[in-house]
Formats: sequence, structure tokens, C-alpha cells
Amino acid sequence: MPLWAIHHTSGYFTAEDKRALASRITDHYQQAGLPRFYVVVIFNEIRSEDFYVGGESTSVGLRIVIDHIARHAADKQNRNRIAHWINSILLPYLRDRGGLHWEFHVDETSEDLWMINGLIPPPMGSEAEQRWVRDNAVSPY
Amino acid sequence: MPLWAIHHTSGYFTAEDKRALASRITDHYQQAGLPRFYVVVIFNEIRSEDFYVGGESTSVGLRIVIDHIARHAADKQNRNRIAHWINSILLPYLRDRGGLHWEFHVDETSEDLWMINGLIPPPMGSEAEQRWVRDNAVSPY
Amino acid sequence: MPLWAIHHTSGYFTAEDKRALASRITDHYQQAGLPRFYVVVIFNEIRSEDFYVGGESTSVGLRIVIDHIARHAADKQNRNRIAHWINSILLPYLRDRGGLHWEFHVDETSEDLWMINGLIPPPMGSEAEQRWVRDNAVSPY
Repeated sequence: MPLWAIHHTSGYFTAEDKRALASRITDHYQQAGLPRFYVVVIFNEIRSEDFYVGGESTSVGLRIVIDHIARHAADKQNRNRIAHWINSILLPYLRDRGGLHWEFHVDETSEDLWMINGLIPPPMGSEAEQRWVRDNAVSPY
Repeated sequence: MPLWAIHHTSGYFTAEDKRALASRITDHYQQAGLPRFYVVVIFNEIRSEDFYVGGESTSVGLRIVIDHIARHAADKQNRNRIAHWINSILLPYLRDRGGLHWEFHVDETSEDLWMINGLIPPPMGSEAEQRWVRDNAVSPY
Repeated sequence: MPLWAIHHTSGYFTAEDKRALASRITDHYQQAGLPRFYVVVIFNEIRSEDFYVGGESTSVGLRIVIDHIARHAADKQNRNRIAHWINSILLPYLRDRGGLHWEFHVDETSEDLWMINGLIPPPMGSEAEQRWVRDNAVSPY
């Protein structure tokens, strides 16, 4: 948690873009209090003939699916705030915005059905979670 | 929204099949009142050695994962109706149905955690949504 | 249901590993009462340059996304029990555990928005479900 699956058309990101975007995403979650290693980002290049927007194959498209597990928004206002926060993370990495379709959505799933390296992560705000943040590593608790 | 991720074994769809199926899916959501560009379809070819059904690698399989965001079903009857509606969209494109495993499921996620081209899409049935339908494009509202 | 999408770095699993792990996963769900063919496992190899953990590209990583549809956990205790059960399925197939990041989460979605081979699967524990288990095949009910 979070898991970002970034589906993009061929060539949209350079290798350096990917590295920098993954780092930026991770920075923002760390600033929100999460251990860095909670953040997993997967890039998935899709050929135009496999990527359709509005029924047409697209040569420049970005569709991001995000799973949030350890933190859930309390209400609509908070969810909208998170959506804007995610958009602000992405903006510096969006080229060709004139012709680009870019879209994301977040799914919130149960923290009770989640494990990292064989452990159920500690509760939000707990002493153990803060140690995981400091160590940037899993440890028994 | 909707996002259709169509995982299929190698060679199941021709390039023309993919184009036609994506177009057909989009038509059906448009008839249900959504802007065409809301519909994103991604095809993902999987080799038999990476695709297992019932513990056996499969040479002809189809597993579709659909995310619904802007519209949620009200009750069980409505959800079942939507499942049948999705199945009817697929049927004309299913070849080799004798030996085929085809399966789909839909996840419903929050419309408040969703953005297209930097905007939270307008509420269902709003004047702004109708304009997005007519223009088939995002515009500020 | 269940759908296991296993994202792994290049070369982490051999072809034989994949076959054996998919079989083992299926065995466990069968022991829990499900038809074998309900279990779909998809392996997705990801290059290091497309797979980031904590903002760094990773050479040995495993991120598994599981969708549960036909069975939902009743409470937190039950969900944690399922997480441990999943982890125990995986453990024999995890090599290089010293440097490995392995993580999974489960999403629970509606059984009413799900179809296999054109049929909404029968209710949990029904006579029809038991027949599907015995036949390991879909049949009208």
C-alpha cells in the first residue's frame, strides 16, 4: 500500500521519467507519514492497438489504478482532497497534455487483508509503524 | 470509468476483434448515458504458461476485470442485471466457446477518488455531464 | 474468483515454479470448498526498470493482488486469518527472502457482479455449487 499501476502508451515515459516519478510519488506518501517501502509503483507499457479510449485506439494515453490500503478517507470532501493531491503529484510528469487522455481512480481495500514480508503491518500511528518509518524496513512488533 | 482490463491468451483476439469489441463496449456505455471517452479498454495478452485456470495452464482463456466508478448498482437485482448486460456485450466476440473459460467481475469504487484530465467528473445526470456527453470531451464546469 | 495477479521481477519464478504455485493455490481453495476452476492465477513479469519499491527500482520483488468474490470475511479476525492463510500458501515458493520485498492484498468484490461462462455462479453452499465442485465444470442450475 499504496500500489500504483501506471498503464501508459509506448514511449510516453523515458526510463528517467519513470525513476523520477516513482521517487516523487514515494516522497509524497512519506510526507503523509508512511514508510517509504509501503509505496510500490509498477509501469505497464501498452501498445496503441491494445489501448482504447472512447472506442478508439490511442497513441498517447495514461490510465492509473491506485490501491489504498493503510489509509482510508473519512468522507467525500476528504476523498476529493486526496484526488487533487494525486493529480498534483502527476502534473509535472505529463507531457503532450494537449492530446493526452489521463485518468486515475483509487480503490480503498481492507488493511486486514494485507501483508508485507509475512507480517500484517502495524496500525496507523502506532509506535511500531513509526519504527517502520524510521528504519524503512519491516521488523517484528 | 469504466475501465475494462481484458486478459486473454495469445492470439485469442485479432487486431480487428479488439478494435470492434472496444467500440461495441463503448457504444453500450454511451447508450447508458456516459460520455464515450469515459470508457477505457485495455487488452493484455498472456502466454499459456502465465495463465492458469483450476491449476492448469490454459491455451484459451479470457479473464476480464471491470472497474465501475461513475455508476453503482442499487441492489442485488440491479447488479445481476448489469452482469447479464456485460455478458451480452461480450457474446458476439467469443470464439471457441466449447473449450473456453471466460469470466469477468466488476468492482465498484468511489467516484470521489477519480479524475480525468485533472478534473473530478461532474455528478451523474448534471448539466455538465450532459455537455461532456455532447462534446465527447472534458471541459471546466 | 479468486483471481490472483502475481507481479514479479524477471526470472523470479521458473516455469515449473509457476505451474506448481498455481496448482498449490488452487488446492487450498478447493480444500476451502470451491470448484477448482474458480481459481485463476496470472503471472506478470515486470522488468526492474518498471518496478519500484520505496522509490527505488527493484531486482527481486513480488506484489500480488487478489480478488475475492464468492467468499467474504465476516470480521477483522477472520480477515487476518485469511491473510495468514494466503501467506502460508506462498512461503514455500519464496526464494531469496533476505533481499525480497513480497507483499499482497486482497480486495473483496460483489458476487452479484460476476459471471463464469455466461452464468452467475450458484450461491455459496448450494446444491448447485456442490455439483460444480464435483464436476469441476459449469452447468446450468
